Amino acid sequence: MSDVDVKKTLANYAAGVEKYLETCLKDRGITPRLQEAMEYSLMAGGKRLRPVLCLIWAEIAGIESAKVMPFAAAIECIHTYSLIHDDLPAMDDDDLRRGKPTNHKVYGEATAILAGDALLTEAFGMMLNVSDVPAERVLQAASIMAYGAGSNGMVGGQQIDMDLTGKDGVELQELQQMHALKTGALITASCLSGCILGGGDEDDMKAAMEWGKNVGMAFQIADDILDVVGDEKELGKPVGSDQEQGKNTYPSMIGLEESKNLAVQVAATANLEIKNYSGAQADFLRHLAAYIVQRTS
Amino acid sequence: MSDVDVKKTLANYAAGVEKYLETCLKDRGITPRLQEAMEYSLMAGGKRLRPVLCLIWAEIAGIESAKVMPFAAAIECIHTYSLIHDDLPAMDDDDLRRGKPTNHKVYGEATAILAGDALLTEAFGMMLNVSDVPAERVLQAASIMAYGAGSNGMVGGQQIDMDLTGKDGVELQELQQMHALKTGALITASCLSGCILGGGDEDDMKAAMEWGKNVGMAFQIADDILDVVGDEKELGKPVGSDQEQGKNTYPSMIGLEESKNLAVQVAATANLEIKNYSGAQADFLRHLAAYIVQRTS
Repeated sequence: MSDVDVKKTLANYAAGVEKYLETCLKDRGITPRLQEAMEYSLMAGGKRLRPVLCLIWAEIAGIESAKVMPFAAAIECIHTYSLIHDDLPAMDDDDLRRGKPTNHKVYGEATAILAGDALLTEAFGMMLNVSDVPAERVLQAASIMAYGAGSNGMVGGQQIDMDLTGKDGVELQELQQMHALKTGALITASCLSGCILGGGDEDDMKAAMEWGKNVGMAFQIADDILDVVGDEKELGKPVGSDQEQGKNTYPSMIGLEESKNLAVQVAATANLEIKNYSGAQADFLRHLAAYIVQRTS
Repeated sequence: MSDVDVKKTLANYAAGVEKYLETCLKDRGITPRLQEAMEYSLMAGGKRLRPVLCLIWAEIAGIESAKVMPFAAAIECIHTYSLIHDDLPAMDDDDLRRGKPTNHKVYGEATAILAGDALLTEAFGMMLNVSDVPAERVLQAASIMAYGAGSNGMVGGQQIDMDLTGKDGVELQELQQMHALKTGALITASCLSGCILGGGDEDDMKAAMEWGKNVGMAFQIADDILDVVGDEKELGKPVGSDQEQGKNTYPSMIGLEESKNLAVQVAATANLEIKNYSGAQADFLRHLAAYIVQRTS
């Protein structure tokens, strides 16, 4: 599978997610300004990596991905809410996201906060309305998402990020712990919840979790590297913003070359976890892990 | 049942909720500053009205309230998150809540936003972990909560509130619609979800919903009245803040006396919906509706 094929497969799955997201807030009677703000960020593009991981792991575990689409799309709502809130003036104070003005720049802070709150809440509504899967599995998978997105996961990581920003003498271990929560936990939960929805057994769940954890870390290292060497136009945001904001990153702590090596190594560790899996989906995951490390946006 | 008895019964149920809330974030390994900020607002007191309504309706529908306690407590987490975000500078910019500095005044805006996000996320985790109730009921009840708390409910109402603040020529109907979402939807969902968890039938669900809707409205009118005639010390916040912020309220739109009459009338409508219910719980609900209208804090 070439890089082109990986991108094509990723885009195919993402197109399904995109289609679902396009209609999920329509004709719901949501007050107009709020709906507009929610859709503005939700439909701003992006790789839709997290929902795709949920779909793929559901397929590996043994269910058609169409049956878990609302759940997968909900994960993108969670990811989007986190970006809206992270961009707020009180947080990272970013003006651009994916080449467009950030949510609060367009709708003001109050609506941006509410659009984030609403996307997070709708996400759980969407997850819980998955009807083609046994209720026990839906409960377990949604509960995994709450854990990964909450104070022991993504939100906790964002708090630690705020605590560490601008601080001197941060240890590499602290940085890794922060990213494991801020980025890794949601990616891991995306894989694991898909696996659970698909009816995976204990071994599958362990594989989904460990692959997700390592890919999440590789993804974050690559993200840090791109903030140094990436192309502004491709990224849709200014490079060097981490440094400007006093963020501790892999390149700032262990250097660019060492960061690149670490990313490759962690992606390889991820793939060891799924070495016993065959089939098109597992093959895609293996190539995806490698692609994530080499991506340019 | 005297007013004293209503307060005593309410306090008894609330004490159970309080006890659960006290421990639900402990020993979870949450990063310290985030946990502290979450607990600061969660344990700041309050009547715990919403969780108590969930517990009572669960009992009416036929289940021990202890079995739905995590779910009921989760509702208070949702309510608390909404207060933290509503108080933010970009929203109502309030300095005091229940006699204490608001969350962002103590922990800063970034942590206050994250504490709210985390409480909302944890709430779903807590709801989904209710294990003594059939999974289908838990799914349905949590889904009702997502609807009541989300863009078609509480968050939608807060957006409309922002849109209407300072605006001239607001119609009474717009004000009612705003409050039905901002306050009413969560109170209604609290009653309905309790009823569903308890195994209530269609008639019970209709009664829970209609009683909740009307009590929610009575509660809001009483709240608006208290902001005019209340005692600052009892309320724990300055009176007159609605007027100062250019908020449209029942007293500002239909006058104080008319507002008082409307509250009494709406509470009576609520109780008509449960006229066929007997037993201590239904009796408590009837007196609670009346008490809510007359409360002084």
